[in-house]
Parts: sequence; structure tokens; C-alpha cells
Amino acid sequence: MTDATARAAALLREHRESIDRLDAILVYTLAERFKHTQAVGRLKAEHGLPPSDPAREAQQIARLEGLARQADLDPEFARKFLAFIISEVIRHHERHQSSGAHAGAATQDQTQET
Amino acid sequence: MTDATARAAALLREHRESIDRLDAILVYTLAERFKHTQAVGRLKAEHGLPPSDPAREAQQIARLEGLARQADLDPEFARKFLAFIISEVIRHHERHQSSGAHAGAATQDQTQET
Repeated sequence: MTDATARAAALLREHRESIDRLDAILVYTLAERFKHTQAVGRLKAEHGLPPSDPAREAQQIARLEGLARQADLDPEFARKFLAFIISEVIRHHERHQSSGAHAGAATQDQTQET
Repeated sequence: MTDATARAAALLREHRESIDRLDAILVYTLAERFKHTQAVGRLKAEHGLPPSDPAREAQQIARLEGLARQADLDPEFARKFLAFIISEVIRHHERHQSSGAHAGAATQDQTQET
């Protein structure tokens, strides 16, 4: 192994350690985010609030795209990321619906809150 | 609107504000993570390091599942999240490959670094 290759291997290790730390941030932040969407789902079911809010979702998409541009992240990726999160929130709600006795239509409709 | 409904609406607003703040964390953290995977791709291409590292990927998956359990996040979601990130890293590399004159096989192979 040449000196240059050894330096590259050391740099690679440092990048991977950073990636691992960033992944921990991502996992814990996603966990916190799901706690909030779950609480929102319960709130809407308990208080008969409108289950879907297209204006809110459009606002979220526009905001994420803006944040992505500021962070030098592909805005298309930001859109796909939100779609991925939405699909996971839907899966959560569906699982709760199938396991709950009286979840019914209200729970199904909460899937719009992301 | 009853008092209870007004309180629920206020709580909903607070949850949404938290979700928006968490989304900003997610976008910036993802942007930082992609900077590292891009640097890794360049390092590997420049120094002829092995492009793929299945042991590293298996370690990442196991670690993310463990973090997810600690954070009370569905471990299955953690796996799907990593797969989503991997697909985005691959897309980035492919785009760089198609736009670069001499990217070739080495760039293609870098797609394994996630």
C-alpha cells in the first residue's frame, strides 16, 4: 500500500465515521417526527378535525424544496424523501387500523397528515 | 368551535411546527451525508480502492436497526430508509457518470458505497 493509498484509506474511514454519526441523527430525528405524526393522527380522530389538508402538504413540499436548495441537496430528492415519509406514515396508520377494533374510516383518512 | 376543538387545533399547530423543524434537520443532515458519500466516491475512483464493501453495508444495516430500536422507530423502516438512501446515491453516481466523459466502470462501481 503506497502512502497515498494509506492516506486515502484513512480519509475513507473518517468519511464513514461521519456517515455513521449522521445516520444516528437521521434515525432519531425520524423517530421524533413519527411521534408527532402519530399524535396528530390521534388528535384528528378524537376531535373530528379535517383528516386531509392538501394546502398543508403543498406548503410542506415547497418548503422542503427551498430547504434542499439552501442545503445544496437535489430538490427532486427532497420531494421523493417527503413521498417516502408519507408512505411510511400511511403504513403506520394502516397497521393501527387493522389492529384496532374501532379505528374505522377516521383513522384511514388521517393518512393524509404527514 | 368548542373549547376542546380550539385546544386540539392549537395542539395540531404545535405538532406541525415541530414537524417542520424536524424536516429542516432531516434535509440538512441528508445534504451533509451526501457530501460525504460523494467524497467517498471520488476517493475510491482516484485511489483504486475496492468499490464495493458488502461487510460495511451489512454493518450499516445492523447498526441502523439497533439505533431504530433504541429510538422506538420501526427497525423495518430503518432498513427501508437505508435502501432509499442507497438508491439515491446510485442515482447521483449514474448522473455523474452520464455527464462525465471518462467516468466509466469505476464510477459505476462506486454506487455500492452508501
